[in-house]
Amino acid sequence: MRRIFLSFVLLLVNLGLFAENGHQLWLRNVANGKVTVVCSDKSVTTAIAVQELKDGWQGRDGATITLKIKKDKAIKNDGFKIGTSEIQANTAVGVLYGAYELLRRQQTGEPIEEKIFNPSYQVRTLNHWDNLDGTIERGYAGRSIFWGEEKNLLPPTEQEKQLWKEYARANASIGINGAVLNNVNASPDMLMPEILQRVKEIADVLRPYGIKTYLSVKFSSPSQAGGLENSDPLNPVVRKWWNAKVKEIYQLVPDFGGFLVKANSEGQPGPQDYGRNHADGANMLADALKPFGGIVMWRAFVYASNDKDRAKQAYNEFKPLDGRFRDNVIVQVKNGPIDFQPREPFSPLFGAMKKTSVMPEVQITQEYLGHSIHLVYLAPMWEEMLKADTYQQGEGSTVAKCTDGSIYPQTYTAVAGVANVGLDTNWCGHEFAQSNWYAFGRQAWDHQLTSEQIADEWIKLTFGNAASLQDADWKNNFLAPVKQMMLDSREAAVNYMMPLGFHHIFAAEHHYGPGPWWAPEGVRSDWTPPYYHQASADGVGFNRTRTGSDAVKQYHEPLASQLNDPKTCPENLLLWFHHLPWDYKMKSGRTLWDEICVHYARGLEQVGEFQKVWDKVEKYVDAERFAGVQSKLRAQRRNAQVWNDGCLLYFQQFSKRAIPYNLDRPQHDLDELIQNDMKRFDE
Amino acid sequence: MRRIFLSFVLLLVNLGLFAENGHQLWLRNVANGKVTVVCSDKSVTTAIAVQELKDGWQGRDGATITLKIKKDKAIKNDGFKIGTSEIQANTAVGVLYGAYELLRRQQTGEPIEEKIFNPSYQVRTLNHWDNLDGTIERGYAGRSIFWGEEKNLLPPTEQEKQLWKEYARANASIGINGAVLNNVNASPDMLMPEILQRVKEIADVLRPYGIKTYLSVKFSSPSQAGGLENSDPLNPVVRKWWNAKVKEIYQLVPDFGGFLVKANSEGQPGPQDYGRNHADGANMLADALKPFGGIVMWRAFVYASNDKDRAKQAYNEFKPLDGRFRDNVIVQVKNGPIDFQPREPFSPLFGAMKKTSVMPEVQITQEYLGHSIHLVYLAPMWEEMLKADTYQQGEGSTVAKCTDGSIYPQTYTAVAGVANVGLDTNWCGHEFAQSNWYAFGRQAWDHQLTSEQIADEWIKLTFGNAASLQDADWKNNFLAPVKQMMLDSREAAVNYMMPLGFHHIFAAEHHYGPGPWWAPEGVRSDWTPPYYHQASADGVGFNRTRTGSDAVKQYHEPLASQLNDPKTCPENLLLWFHHLPWDYKMKSGRTLWDEICVHYARGLEQVGEFQKVWDKVEKYVDAERFAGVQSKLRAQRRNAQVWNDGCLLYFQQFSKRAIPYNLDRPQHDLDELIQNDMKRFDE
Repeated sequence: MRRIFLSFVLLLVNLGLFAENGHQLWLRNVANGKVTVVCSDKSVTTAIAVQELKDGWQGRDGATITLKIKKDKAIKNDGFKIGTSEIQANTAVGVLYGAYELLRRQQTGEPIEEKIFNPSYQVRTLNHWDNLDGTIERGYAGRSIFWGEEKNLLPPTEQEKQLWKEYARANASIGINGAVLNNVNASPDMLMPEILQRVKEIADVLRPYGIKTYLSVKFSSPSQAGGLENSDPLNPVVRKWWNAKVKEIYQLVPDFGGFLVKANSEGQPGPQDYGRNHADGANMLADALKPFGGIVMWRAFVYASNDKDRAKQAYNEFKPLDGRFRDNVIVQVKNGPIDFQPREPFSPLFGAMKKTSVMPEVQITQEYLGHSIHLVYLAPMWEEMLKADTYQQGEGSTVAKCTDGSIYPQTYTAVAGVANVGLDTNWCGHEFAQSNWYAFGRQAWDHQLTSEQIADEWIKLTFGNAASLQDADWKNNFLAPVKQMMLDSREAAVNYMMPLGFHHIFAAEHHYGPGPWWAPEGVRSDWTPPYYHQASADGVGFNRTRTGSDAVKQYHEPLASQLNDPKTCPENLLLWFHHLPWDYKMKSGRTLWDEICVHYARGLEQVGEFQKVWDKVEKYVDAERFAGVQSKLRAQRRNAQVWNDGCLLYFQQFSKRAIPYNLDRPQHDLDELIQNDMKRFDE
Repeated sequence: MRRIFLSFVLLLVNLGLFAENGHQLWLRNVANGKVTVVCSDKSVTTAIAVQELKDGWQGRDGATITLKIKKDKAIKNDGFKIGTSEIQANTAVGVLYGAYELLRRQQTGEPIEEKIFNPSYQVRTLNHWDNLDGTIERGYAGRSIFWGEEKNLLPPTEQEKQLWKEYARANASIGINGAVLNNVNASPDMLMPEILQRVKEIADVLRPYGIKTYLSVKFSSPSQAGGLENSDPLNPVVRKWWNAKVKEIYQLVPDFGGFLVKANSEGQPGPQDYGRNHADGANMLADALKPFGGIVMWRAFVYASNDKDRAKQAYNEFKPLDGRFRDNVIVQVKNGPIDFQPREPFSPLFGAMKKTSVMPEVQITQEYLGHSIHLVYLAPMWEEMLKADTYQQGEGSTVAKCTDGSIYPQTYTAVAGVANVGLDTNWCGHEFAQSNWYAFGRQAWDHQLTSEQIADEWIKLTFGNAASLQDADWKNNFLAPVKQMMLDSREAAVNYMMPLGFHHIFAAEHHYGPGPWWAPEGVRSDWTPPYYHQASADGVGFNRTRTGSDAVKQYHEPLASQLNDPKTCPENLLLWFHHLPWDYKMKSGRTLWDEICVHYARGLEQVGEFQKVWDKVEKYVDAERFAGVQSKLRAQRRNAQVWNDGCLLYFQQFSKRAIPYNLDRPQHDLDELIQNDMKRFDE
């Protein structure tokens, strides 16, 4: 019966009659030819590879392809080699990746020649900020696919397992090989035996697809969950507790990946509670994991309220510890020094550490980029970071090179993305938010891929089919404009949210709309936007130059001096590093105030252009996805207006200057926006 | 003490320090010279004239002016003659009007030469739709200045009397000489002795300013309030009751003006309830009023749900009664055949009656034109109606001429405007709504004044002063653009609400936002927008041609034939008279659908332009009024977007055509707008 149903579904898909709900992600093509797959390995993983090739084959009808597990020095880790009739890898997972790569090339029309594909990072992991109660911190696509109060203690249903399998398959298809199953703001309950039982169930489903399971742990678990007197990392009883807990985990999950830890950060407990430092804390866990091959990803996202510049604090705390971490500890550093803003300079911790493994953390879920309402393709933001030059060892010392082991050898290299996945049918809330999941995986595999290449692939896989690849009309009138829209979308968001180096002027709590005014009495100042924008009658921006907080000093020369001078500082980071008068003359010849206005207006205009692009491609898209994206673009346009109006009217109170009269006028009153700033617009 | 306070206030006004709240309307200039006023008449009315001249004198310092009541055949009714040193009139009120005209000319820089000013209509009346509980039907400027449950039975306070006096002065300054104190949907309680006592108090305050008091009466008052068996107009007992009631009123208000009646209309009782006709009903009341010089204004706003075209019904009911009304009855006809829509053709009852007095009724309060939120200057709408050619006696038989007695003699000529006045400090809710009160009075006095002239006067009086009249910068950069904005504003509203002859596609109840979809089951169809727009796959518009309802027949030739042919019908009334396919070719070369889209877009653009105009004039306006208007323009822009989106997305369901891709896209989803259509936006 199930088989008949499936055939029926496939028939509908083929006829284009299946209601399109986005659930298939970028994995929607079906075979249009037959292939014979030869594979001597009998693992479940290679079996998946065989089946995927058969189900998705779009190459020559009647071809034969051989899957081979065979060591080759040129093939690194789970890399692979593709040839015209062969896929070779060191591991079964490498073979599976090779199968996906081959299929992708068939489906996107990329050339298929003999070539080795090696990953940029060994560990390519999603961080799920999922709570045990099923909510997801900063999640905008429904509840957790893993957790839910009532579900946690029950054996998983077949439906759940099916969903986890689809999730694992999607990850494997883009090379993601790790999943941290729970929020970095972790509950000590996570380590309860009943919960670990469910972790095992999940890990069992993910394993065939090459996904290792990781957990976030609360540093105070020994005292909170284990009943110990404290959680001091130098306390032998505590160390013993962790050793035992790790052993318990590995008994359930033999290939368990390790721990992710947020410690002494935003109220989370950590080693500093006991007068110890981050290395002490991380090393204790690393020692427990070491015998089993596990790693610790220790977050550098720390800041106290006792320093004048939050942007400097992670560096100040971690740089002195360089060389004091075990080799299975990786310091996980957010892309920028503050917190996943629409634009930040790269974190100065990239390029700072010489004897410590460092990994970038990016946020796929759009906490600060319009949630799952705004169409914002994030690959350009991450590409900007990965390709930024730290000058650690002279020119060309990009963030990518500082983290992939090519400048300083690291025992482990890794990259993390905060997942945007939830129970929504289309996984990510917004059809185009899927592209960010996709792009993260692709960049994690190959940090030299361009955003344009990735967008091209994703559009073809998500909206195209075998026929459209041959269709000039589709390429010119769908692929090209939609790709351009994606490529422009992050800069548009920067424009209408916080251009020219503005940062963290979000409304509190939801981080969706504008809140440059938000500063209630009693709230620590570095949690309020005025701390970041420093607007006053004399100007705007945070002085991080040598005359200010001297955050520029955390960068290598010649970058430090470039950033220090407003004439050489990139204008898109100007107000990050400089406090400048409202009439400061910009490169355009406009005053700073006018330039700010023009950027907001440009952002509005860009979203309006995206609406036009999307409306024009209606005939190339199924009705459901078309309408869903159209509706969200409308909301994005309305919200961009709120951003424009809120920020300009707020800053105008200080600039005392008119918005240039050639620009469209605000459509909201400032007091109305302030009154509503705690509400997320469009809810 | 009071005197000291007043001097202090005047000082503040002179220093420009007085917080501007709009309460002073167009009466804000203060004398900048001395004048000696000679006046032998000792009436309270001429005393007001003397004081006004002294308080507002801006002519030659030390001049002398003589006020004279002296009959002159060239001066009609309460007209007057102005000379360089004299004001002459038949009546004291005429002298007062002359004083206001002279001051206006001084304040606006108009030439002052010997000239006679005669009114176009004898009776120039405001209809207040004020209820005894203090609410105002279709009022958007606060509660009633006359009524309020608890107040009605108490003697008026000094504050109330002061407000009524200011109201009377404002009216007198623009020639309004009548006020109907209560809603046409009248309560029978209006005729209770206690209420009539308050009517007397109000009339006593209005009288010195030449304002006659009128009342709306409920036709069923004899049975409802008088305890009679019925209210049949041919029942002698009923007639006797009315005679007594009228006598009672005149004992309290010796110059009482008469009655306004809404009968057999929208559920109101009327003579038809007893098998009588409108003439029977009106004549009964006219007979009762006749001995005292009172008149009946009998509304022609009638429609049943039994005819296919509501637009035809007033004509069908009233035309056959031509000649059967007493000479002190005036049939009060709304400007258009439906109901105060943003654009209607003139009512065919203008030019239809040959032996019956007919008066136009316009709506100053913006029921269908954005309430007191949208800036819409209505004079162009009324000018369009007054100057429309009915062809009743060949070319040039304008609506103005058909109602002012120049084509057919009428014992009484009159015009009515539904007031937009309430307890709001600025009287009208929107600063620019004051211009509609002003314009109504000015057009009622002289129906040949242009909208441009009136706007020019109003802006000078409301925002200018003696200095600004001499200031080229003020004239070029304030007066000119603001005037143009006002002149464009009604067409803008038509564009973004219901262009090309669309009508009554408002949301139900509030008549503020769009509701072309509104048609719940069980509601009579002529109360639902689809009745009016007739949108379907084959086209849109109401066929009122000879192949349809033949409403065109109610107009004289050659107009009837012009309207009947889509090629000669003015495009701005096209869908009023024609049902046309979506691809009908317009004069622009565009399809009808594209033309509809372009009009909505143009409306949006126009409001955006108004915002720019207003923001640019900031330095010429006090901060309070500037901010108030700025905020309302923002709301208007947002609401115009709602109109654009709601109408285009709704009609697109039938047209199945894309909104032209060069136009900005909708920012709201149709289903969201439909869900919210019962809410007035911005509340």
